[in-house]
Amino acid sequence: MKKVGFIGMGMMGAPMALNLHKAGFDVTVYNRSKERLQPLKEKGLTVAETLVDVVKEKDVVITMLSNDEAVKEVVTGDNGIIEYIEAPTILVDMSTVSPDTSIFLAGVAKEMGVTMIDAPVSGSSNAAENGTLVILGGGDKQVFESIGDVFRAMGKTTLYFGENGSGSKAKLVINLMLGITMQGISESLVLAEKFFLDRGLVLEMMQQAAVASPFLGFKKDSLLREEYPAAFALKHMHKDLGLILGQARENGSVLPATSAAYQSYTAAMNHQMEDMDMAAVFSELLQQSGVEKK
Amino acid sequence: MKKVGFIGMGMMGAPMALNLHKAGFDVTVYNRSKERLQPLKEKGLTVAETLVDVVKEKDVVITMLSNDEAVKEVVTGDNGIIEYIEAPTILVDMSTVSPDTSIFLAGVAKEMGVTMIDAPVSGSSNAAENGTLVILGGGDKQVFESIGDVFRAMGKTTLYFGENGSGSKAKLVINLMLGITMQGISESLVLAEKFFLDRGLVLEMMQQAAVASPFLGFKKDSLLREEYPAAFALKHMHKDLGLILGQARENGSVLPATSAAYQSYTAAMNHQMEDMDMAAVFSELLQQSGVEKK
Amino acid sequence: MKKVGFIGMGMMGAPMALNLHKAGFDVTVYNRSKERLQPLKEKGLTVAETLVDVVKEKDVVITMLSNDEAVKEVVTGDNGIIEYIEAPTILVDMSTVSPDTSIFLAGVAKEMGVTMIDAPVSGSSNAAENGTLVILGGGDKQVFESIGDVFRAMGKTTLYFGENGSGSKAKLVINLMLGITMQGISESLVLAEKFFLDRGLVLEMMQQAAVASPFLGFKKDSLLREEYPAAFALKHMHKDLGLILGQARENGSVLPATSAAYQSYTAAMNHQMEDMDMAAVFSELLQQSGVEKK
Amino acid sequence: MKKVGFIGMGMMGAPMALNLHKAGFDVTVYNRSKERLQPLKEKGLTVAETLVDVVKEKDVVITMLSNDEAVKEVVTGDNGIIEYIEAPTILVDMSTVSPDTSIFLAGVAKEMGVTMIDAPVSGSSNAAENGTLVILGGGDKQVFESIGDVFRAMGKTTLYFGENGSGSKAKLVINLMLGITMQGISESLVLAEKFFLDRGLVLEMMQQAAVASPFLGFKKDSLLREEYPAAFALKHMHKDLGLILGQARENGSVLPATSAAYQSYTAAMNHQMEDMDMAAVFSELLQQSGVEKK
Repeated sequence: MKKVGFIGMGMMGAPMALNLHKAGFDVTVYNRSKERLQPLKEKGLTVAETLVDVVKEKDVVITMLSNDEAVKEVVTGDNGIIEYIEAPTILVDMSTVSPDTSIFLAGVAKEMGVTMIDAPVSGSSNAAENGTLVILGGGDKQVFESIGDVFRAMGKTTLYFGENGSGSKAKLVINLMLGITMQGISESLVLAEKFFLDRGLVLEMMQQAAVASPFLGFKKDSLLREEYPAAFALKHMHKDLGLILGQARENGSVLPATSAAYQSYTAAMNHQMEDMDMAAVFSELLQQSGVEKK
Repeated sequence: MKKVGFIGMGMMGAPMALNLHKAGFDVTVYNRSKERLQPLKEKGLTVAETLVDVVKEKDVVITMLSNDEAVKEVVTGDNGIIEYIEAPTILVDMSTVSPDTSIFLAGVAKEMGVTMIDAPVSGSSNAAENGTLVILGGGDKQVFESIGDVFRAMGKTTLYFGENGSGSKAKLVINLMLGITMQGISESLVLAEKFFLDRGLVLEMMQQAAVASPFLGFKKDSLLREEYPAAFALKHMHKDLGLILGQARENGSVLPATSAAYQSYTAAMNHQMEDMDMAAVFSELLQQSGVEKK
Repeated sequence: MKKVGFIGMGMMGAPMALNLHKAGFDVTVYNRSKERLQPLKEKGLTVAETLVDVVKEKDVVITMLSNDEAVKEVVTGDNGIIEYIEAPTILVDMSTVSPDTSIFLAGVAKEMGVTMIDAPVSGSSNAAENGTLVILGGGDKQVFESIGDVFRAMGKTTLYFGENGSGSKAKLVINLMLGITMQGISESLVLAEKFFLDRGLVLEMMQQAAVASPFLGFKKDSLLREEYPAAFALKHMHKDLGLILGQARENGSVLPATSAAYQSYTAAMNHQMEDMDMAAVFSELLQQSGVEKK
Repeated sequence: MKKVGFIGMGMMGAPMALNLHKAGFDVTVYNRSKERLQPLKEKGLTVAETLVDVVKEKDVVITMLSNDEAVKEVVTGDNGIIEYIEAPTILVDMSTVSPDTSIFLAGVAKEMGVTMIDAPVSGSSNAAENGTLVILGGGDKQVFESIGDVFRAMGKTTLYFGENGSGSKAKLVINLMLGITMQGISESLVLAEKFFLDRGLVLEMMQQAAVASPFLGFKKDSLLREEYPAAFALKHMHKDLGLILGQARENGSVLPATSAAYQSYTAAMNHQMEDMDMAAVFSELLQQSGVEKK
């Protein structure tokens, strides 16, 4: 079985690494803050003390970090792993980053003789635990396919979108859909509120209708109570929508509803909802509509 | 079993009446154009020649017609059924009409001593055939519950929302969600197109992701081919969104993404897509984004 | 000189009637609340006690009232003036009402043998005092021109737009421009605020630039202080924009920025700014942008 | 009198340099393509053959170039002027560039011991010729004021906004107002068209109303004829609005109408209107509204 180095043991990375271990891969993990490593050690994964240790003599090195800056620092920063990785080790970034970052990193890696793949995922920490992520791939096709076994251990579906950056582009596409769906649910509920319809009943109606989705199910309780423990923090959706609109500026996509929704998320950010779940945009719209929290 | 008169044997009404018949109700049907009645006659339903015949001595009279004007004409127009119905017959309008129309008709009925219920449905003709509609009720609660057996023969779920007009309001809420979901899918696909991602793959990704919905499944082929045989005609969605925004004007709902989406549907209307499926709004957005049909 | 009956001695009507008097017309005025009539009496205008008195034996009868309902009541309500007016008296409504109301009233008048003109005005009470209104006419062209002397006494420009309702349509067009200009000024100032630019300087820049307008001059102080004594109440602009979007729904106009601006005015309405000047939409946008009042 | 070096003899730069010359300054000019220099030579300005010649031993060096890249190349590129300029020569960039570029360049200059000022202008080539530009300044206040005589020779008003970048920020603010005003005029005219009102009359009404502006006067003929020779190219307004929305993403400005307008300009870009005047957004909206060119 392949030897896998895995950097980033957050909410997503830890269960993903664990699934690789369960599938029989030889997994070495690394995390900057060490307290997250102990439970994995107990489950039998090898823990690396340094970035050098996590990457050397591996078949595949995976990064799963929180944003563009974190990935850039780990890969190409001072003491970045790109200095220590040697072909045929394959570098796979599964973080959600901008396509520009994916393309930039793959370029740097290529100059160093290493093939890099962007393979961000669609799915929550729940899906990471259950191994039911959807993996969105960009980069060299043959290389991508050569590590299909690794992806299958973490996800239910692996989709190859094309050259480097394509995986990150696909991720933006799906996040646009998430952002606008949340806005749509919120606007529906605002109208319902103004109609004095029962919110619980309206949510039940939505779950019975053709627009029902697992996503709606995840958010239902938050919307009902107007309490928003973060599964997908509003600030992250705000950042992603900003990134999407930035890409649209460059490629000429006309995205009127996304642009309108972005204004609502921005207002929510300005009203101290950044660390709440993205569903909090509903409360922003309620507030703009003059509806007091019950 | 109850005797049911059913007016309007369109794409929705015919299978609904048939399901009532199958459930053992004594069903008499009426339709303005008579050619739609023959298949129902062959299946054992009673066919009424006149509006008078379809309503007299029934427990429940159901109307399922195409729009506000059609319902108003059949119920309160010249020779309208309200002249012939007598309590305790219950009048149930299952058409999609504006809340104002529902409230108006219930008021007229009440003056004539008849109880009227608004009970529009969520679901396509497919759901009508399978008896899996979601029924959205408004009007007197006791009366509504007294005919629960009738609703259960046509739908999988029956939700009671409150006084007259509430059913029609709930229907607008669900249609807002449909309209904005379609817009969201379209904007996602526009961005994907501009990213040169494969459309089929992107649709597959959406269907695997948390935003997957039966609705997306229904539209997938149309979006892939940019061919739009109407399941839900764009002009109807345009009309419903117009109605929604009209209601929002009156009740102060802030609906920025809905308002933005409405502009796209309006442009599609202006570009001769009114009789296509609502999914054609995707082609409008592609055109605005400068993407030629392949 | 022509004999003119003038109904409605509000902020606009009173100075308009006075200008007619100064120009030598024989002016009789009427107002529901009588205290507004005394100053006009002192200046030599004839005061009518009843609606009958203000309309009988006049060449022209002008109405200048606050909204559609008020005009409808005075013209076609119980004891409405349409019962007492006889050709060749010409009825001229100068109120801001919907095109539908203008067309309806002209139709009723025509049935009674009377020609009605819609002639709403562009301009504030200041312009009414100075006789520098812009008069926007709809209705029979010959009749409209036959009373050009009357219009010239009140306005600097008289524009004839076509059949009945056209004057009211033109008025909506100019009010769309007002509403979106106010929104544009507000968004410019929000951006400036977030850039930490001095608001007074930015307003001075605008007044020196090609976009400078008298309108900007009128609003400058309000915007600087975030204090909004109503010259044009926000609720009226909200109503007019709602009317505009309602007309756009019927005629297929694509108005994306107007639709977006309407959401901001609606939020301002929901935040108790309805009786402030329309410029208060700036404070709504500041609030959404997280900027505290200084 | 001060010795001024002036780089960039385009539509704006040439008349600005000429006005400096007329005001008695000792002006040396430079332009990459030499044919634009001959007319200035004939009028008595000194022509520099090289960048070195235009900057050495000057009191003030002005750049007036087409975009960020051009300014960066001339100032900090290979053989850029920053190598040759020595204090106390003051470097003044009057081009329209992003605040980030202004701040970056001023930082580089400072490291080289040179003070740089950003002083973009509001006003067309007409205003450049007449010396009626509005000059928007950012940078060291004392330095800025020390060259007030230079600015007064080119503009009617000089406004100081604060530290480096502030001038460029103010320029974005005024361009937001231009962009949304153009959109507002266009939407007003679209509604008018759908009302079948005469376009020329409607434009006359606007010019008589409180929203009248010089800007409206400049665009009137283009709008009337739907012919758009570029005074301010649509692609530049599109770029500026993109830059504005990019800044808003960073600073949290809520700009709903600007965002909506940007979609219309983007669609116009996608429909080959990039080199037309920005007023062409009107034709884009007409097209979306289903109105054929007459």
